[in-house]
Amino acid sequence: MPIVVMKFGGTSVGSVERIEAVADRVVRAREAGDDVIVVVSAMGESTDELLAMATRITEVPDPRELDMLLTAGERIAMSLLGIAINARGCRAASYTGSQAGIITDTQHGKAKIVEIRPKRVIEALQAGNVVVLAGFQGLSNQYEITTLGRGGSDLTAVAMAGAVGAGICEIYTDVAGVFTADPRIVPDARPVKVVSYEEMLELAAAGAKVLQSRSVEMARRHGVRIHVRSSFGDDPGTWVQEVDEDMMEGVLISGAALDTDETKVTIDAVPDKPGVAASIFKAIAAEGVNVDMIVQNVGHDGTTDLSFTAPREDVPRLRDVLGPLVRDIGAERFTLDEGIAKLSLVGAGMKSHPGVAADMFDVLAGEGVNIEMISTSPIRISCVIREGDAERALRAVHARFELSEERA
Amino acid sequence: MPIVVMKFGGTSVGSVERIEAVADRVVRAREAGDDVIVVVSAMGESTDELLAMATRITEVPDPRELDMLLTAGERIAMSLLGIAINARGCRAASYTGSQAGIITDTQHGKAKIVEIRPKRVIEALQAGNVVVLAGFQGLSNQYEITTLGRGGSDLTAVAMAGAVGAGICEIYTDVAGVFTADPRIVPDARPVKVVSYEEMLELAAAGAKVLQSRSVEMARRHGVRIHVRSSFGDDPGTWVQEVDEDMMEGVLISGAALDTDETKVTIDAVPDKPGVAASIFKAIAAEGVNVDMIVQNVGHDGTTDLSFTAPREDVPRLRDVLGPLVRDIGAERFTLDEGIAKLSLVGAGMKSHPGVAADMFDVLAGEGVNIEMISTSPIRISCVIREGDAERALRAVHARFELSEERA
Repeated sequence: MPIVVMKFGGTSVGSVERIEAVADRVVRAREAGDDVIVVVSAMGESTDELLAMATRITEVPDPRELDMLLTAGERIAMSLLGIAINARGCRAASYTGSQAGIITDTQHGKAKIVEIRPKRVIEALQAGNVVVLAGFQGLSNQYEITTLGRGGSDLTAVAMAGAVGAGICEIYTDVAGVFTADPRIVPDARPVKVVSYEEMLELAAAGAKVLQSRSVEMARRHGVRIHVRSSFGDDPGTWVQEVDEDMMEGVLISGAALDTDETKVTIDAVPDKPGVAASIFKAIAAEGVNVDMIVQNVGHDGTTDLSFTAPREDVPRLRDVLGPLVRDIGAERFTLDEGIAKLSLVGAGMKSHPGVAADMFDVLAGEGVNIEMISTSPIRISCVIREGDAERALRAVHARFELSEERA
Repeated sequence: MPIVVMKFGGTSVGSVERIEAVADRVVRAREAGDDVIVVVSAMGESTDELLAMATRITEVPDPRELDMLLTAGERIAMSLLGIAINARGCRAASYTGSQAGIITDTQHGKAKIVEIRPKRVIEALQAGNVVVLAGFQGLSNQYEITTLGRGGSDLTAVAMAGAVGAGICEIYTDVAGVFTADPRIVPDARPVKVVSYEEMLELAAAGAKVLQSRSVEMARRHGVRIHVRSSFGDDPGTWVQEVDEDMMEGVLISGAALDTDETKVTIDAVPDKPGVAASIFKAIAAEGVNVDMIVQNVGHDGTTDLSFTAPREDVPRLRDVLGPLVRDIGAERFTLDEGIAKLSLVGAGMKSHPGVAADMFDVLAGEGVNIEMISTSPIRISCVIREGDAERALRAVHARFELSEERA
């Protein structure tokens, strides 16, 4: 039988009533003839509540113990769902990440999946069960319980879909799919029917929160089609999949995204000699900070100014590393600017339409928005602008590229 | 280093503040030079809260899934305690029942421990950790998560103490030890300093709730001394241990107990022929009902009346089995009487003092209390009386045998 993986996020299992609604949907899918694996997150805010108890004890909880604590959340959600499915006369058995063979490295709090051993899951399916699976968690190769970090349940779902040869991974969420822009900011934004893995990766990196990059990467690697859709209805949502060129004809831009979670770092008067940039970014990477856009201005007087963006949550670590670094390399100083936003346009059609960047700059100029940094890929253009201009700028580019128009 | 096992019940870990107080106590024990294993129950009422969510979905939750759900409770308590101990600069690592090698049979909800494989616990101790261990749970020999039923955390503690060769298992609870009678009913009841395993077994069977029979059995089998004491102070409590005769000289009665959780079953006009009693109790045992006292009256007209007591929670199952059974054996009818109580006196000294039973009956007669059933062991006398007389009767026997007097 074909296997389908269905993943439900925290909002979708946020109460006993919602868990029962999920059970109804799962039973329908099972009765339609598929083998079903359901991946669940912890109920509603329960992960945050567990975290809050831990941080009442200490600001920096022991990472091993914290993972042990947080994994209780999915355990509760999955067993309640297991109970609800069984109560509907459909056999179900729930499995922790450890039991399901999700093997990770040893990095507590943000472990990487290194292998999946789905023997027990497959046996449970063959015995006629719906398999309910805890998202977000695994077992390290040192036999310790780990968690996968933000977006971890999506990753569990996609990785398990790949491991058992399920062609489709349905991600049920509280929005109706991947939108042309955040509908809270752009009221006439609409769900996109299909995006390619590459576009989705660019959108995720550009700040679209519906799917995280590593889940999309995992799906692309294993050829798993992702269907992002609402858990509160039956409308089709967005397919994330391989897309051939013909299919995308006429679709220039898939979506626009805004990222207001970054900070801009500028290091002034960096000595303009070979190897300096490498030593800067090596030191930053060693702290585990993911640098995004990097811009180096033309040098003068043997020095140059270097700017880059990085997540705001990494600012404390950035301060720690940049202080000594600036001294060591003989630069003048560093400044942090949190008042920025990154506005991005993503679309596979850009490859064959060179005028998109110019059009985007034109829109921003027309709105009186100053562009501070620019970076591009073959299918994306991103501009760093003032945070205060961000929402107006997003609405303007969304309108200019006619993203609210329905397309075939 | 000597190993000490400390067990804390749900009330003792009922809030983050109480978990921190437990952490303080554990760190003191560790700093005193012992290797420490801490066994915890779920926080406060959290097991009941999880159960309530499950029974909102269905009255009879799938047993496997229910065990998966309930074991989340100890996971939360143990990891928070692990975080709190680590935050005090003392290394700790928490382990689930499964990780700690608590191997059980497959009876979900009331699994029996069949083996303990403490390899990982011992390695963690040798690596310098305080081991924090989830009570109440294990892994079946079919690799399924199980729970041990009521009093299961005490059992985990005593069994692990036996498996790692710890001589002492400290049970921290919300009372100061084993009392001569329930102090809520008998205000001048006092904690007993020492009771033998045998006496504690009789007290537990007689309704004393502080320790369950199977934990005491396990302790006796492995020669583990149990120290029952309050988690809210440093006073010594009650030692449950091997007691030699000399030590007990002069101690006639260790305690009195009341059990108001039983029901009396009477089957009228049972044919008085060989094999009938066996077929009755075989059928009841097959339903998993534990029968306590059994009394058969002298027969007349070729029939006899048979009475026994059983836990009130088993009444629905009793009704199911007794209806057809009464018809099959050709008895007249059965009646259930929940208005009873069982009053027991327990003491090793009874063996050498034959007058205790007579004294007890005399006290009850003086109070105008009717005795409906009697059963005895070498160190216990139990009388079934009306529930409405029970507390008055308990106070009267407690006074008559001078149990409130301090003894050496």
